[in-house]
Amino acid sequence: MFKFPEHQIAGHLALGGKLGPQIDESGRFCKPLQEDERGSREVAFYEALYSTSKVKKQILRFFPVFYGTHIIEASDGSGLHPHLVLQDVVSDYIKPCIMDIKIGSRTWYPQASEDYVAKCLRKDRGTTSLSLGFRISGLQIYQGKKSGYWKPDRKQIQKFTADDVRSVLRKFVSSNQLGDSDHKPDSTPACYMYGGFSGIYQQLLELKSWFEEQTDFHFNSCSILLIYDGESEKNGGNPQSTIKLIDFAHVFDGNNVIDHNFLGGLSSLIKFISDASATQLSKPKWLDAPAA
Amino acid sequence: MFKFPEHQIAGHLALGGKLGPQIDESGRFCKPLQEDERGSREVAFYEALYSTSKVKKQILRFFPVFYGTHIIEASDGSGLHPHLVLQDVVSDYIKPCIMDIKIGSRTWYPQASEDYVAKCLRKDRGTTSLSLGFRISGLQIYQGKKSGYWKPDRKQIQKFTADDVRSVLRKFVSSNQLGDSDHKPDSTPACYMYGGFSGIYQQLLELKSWFEEQTDFHFNSCSILLIYDGESEKNGGNPQSTIKLIDFAHVFDGNNVIDHNFLGGLSSLIKFISDASATQLSKPKWLDAPAA
Repeated sequence: MFKFPEHQIAGHLALGGKLGPQIDESGRFCKPLQEDERGSREVAFYEALYSTSKVKKQILRFFPVFYGTHIIEASDGSGLHPHLVLQDVVSDYIKPCIMDIKIGSRTWYPQASEDYVAKCLRKDRGTTSLSLGFRISGLQIYQGKKSGYWKPDRKQIQKFTADDVRSVLRKFVSSNQLGDSDHKPDSTPACYMYGGFSGIYQQLLELKSWFEEQTDFHFNSCSILLIYDGESEKNGGNPQSTIKLIDFAHVFDGNNVIDHNFLGGLSSLIKFISDASATQLSKPKWLDAPAA
Repeated sequence: MFKFPEHQIAGHLALGGKLGPQIDESGRFCKPLQEDERGSREVAFYEALYSTSKVKKQILRFFPVFYGTHIIEASDGSGLHPHLVLQDVVSDYIKPCIMDIKIGSRTWYPQASEDYVAKCLRKDRGTTSLSLGFRISGLQIYQGKKSGYWKPDRKQIQKFTADDVRSVLRKFVSSNQLGDSDHKPDSTPACYMYGGFSGIYQQLLELKSWFEEQTDFHFNSCSILLIYDGESEKNGGNPQSTIKLIDFAHVFDGNNVIDHNFLGGLSSLIKFISDASATQLSKPKWLDAPAA
């Protein structure tokens, strides 16, 4: 039994009779294979990732588990279609807070056609990709029982400026830091230091170390998902906060060169997150609230 | 008394009656100010660099000392012209081995005109800038008394492929490692570990740490010079190997974002140099020599 992913925040959506991903009850995410070379490249990447002994377990955990490909009924009713079968990376979270961040100041790849380069370059210059080295492609933040999820629409996200990115990252960090609005402010430091978000930050640093060394893959136009549980404070047994790399239709052989485009963008993101966390720590949210 | 720099390996040359830099006997390098905004931006950068307390001494040593601007006779005989007065960074070296490496997979800056962007992009794609995150712009390597300097011409350098860059870096590392051809091979490990080149490698790592944090400047189209003395083994009192950043006509305000383009390219260069050194260490040059 398949259903549409409830917490998908970017990419092609199956909603409205279109071709898009579906999830099953066992926590698998079935993503339709794109019919051109993008589909075959993504399969080839997953196969290479799991077949090479070069990528350590410590790094493999930053990728969705790959179960192979499978032919299933397409979401658009067009009949049978090959799908990538992947781990549904949010299935274990009660209230998943997610940010999809496309990494790199350049989303095109050297081998691409002139038209494709021009199209990507226009988009990179029109978003924060060029200036910040990354752009937010989607997000949802759980704000508590009353407000539910904050999930800005795509058009709004595409217009994000550097300042918007700063403020959204602060919001993302602080939602986790302060948790639901009924949390006591004085639990903040411990919650920040040991809670979900610091896990994400540490994982980003680990990922960065890998990118300083690995020369097998160049991840053009890939995203990092940041995920934590908006209800983690109440549920000791919740899954840990995590980062996951996704979208590998434009991964190419690194040819013994590090992925400097990805590494630069990732380093910039890490600095932004570090700044956002520092701001929150030195100036907790409740101090900004107007006096009652 | 001014003369033309003997060891200039890239940039505008004063030779042949053109406008170019001149050096004086006290070790100062006078670089003609470009008349458009590039000139004023370079002066503004040096002034900002030395006036802000943010840049520590440990980092300032990676830049040429700046003595201000001065109006002197231009090298092309056109009369008085304003010049930047800088430290001549190679004046203390007996046989300077130098590499000029332009950092960044992108040499254009976001604010540039479409024509300028297109021109730079073409050059970045036509050289190793796009693929490696840097390109070699000039070099000279001292090969001993008999052979003198190896100094390929600009056209040759512009055509360097990734493999050429690898081999040139190995040559650069190994010349320093083994020194003059009359050095005994068994002095290699100590020479490599404590000699000139490891100094350069350590400095690059220090510079990288700075780029992971600093958000004041974006260094578009800047170069790093790697410099060591080809005669250092014979002269205990020689200056240390060093790196120097040069060419700041396209430096812009960082707007609280790290220079991810420079950082990515620098990280790639560091990996290349580390690989070149490792190859040299594991397979010393004399093992490759044909049996006598």
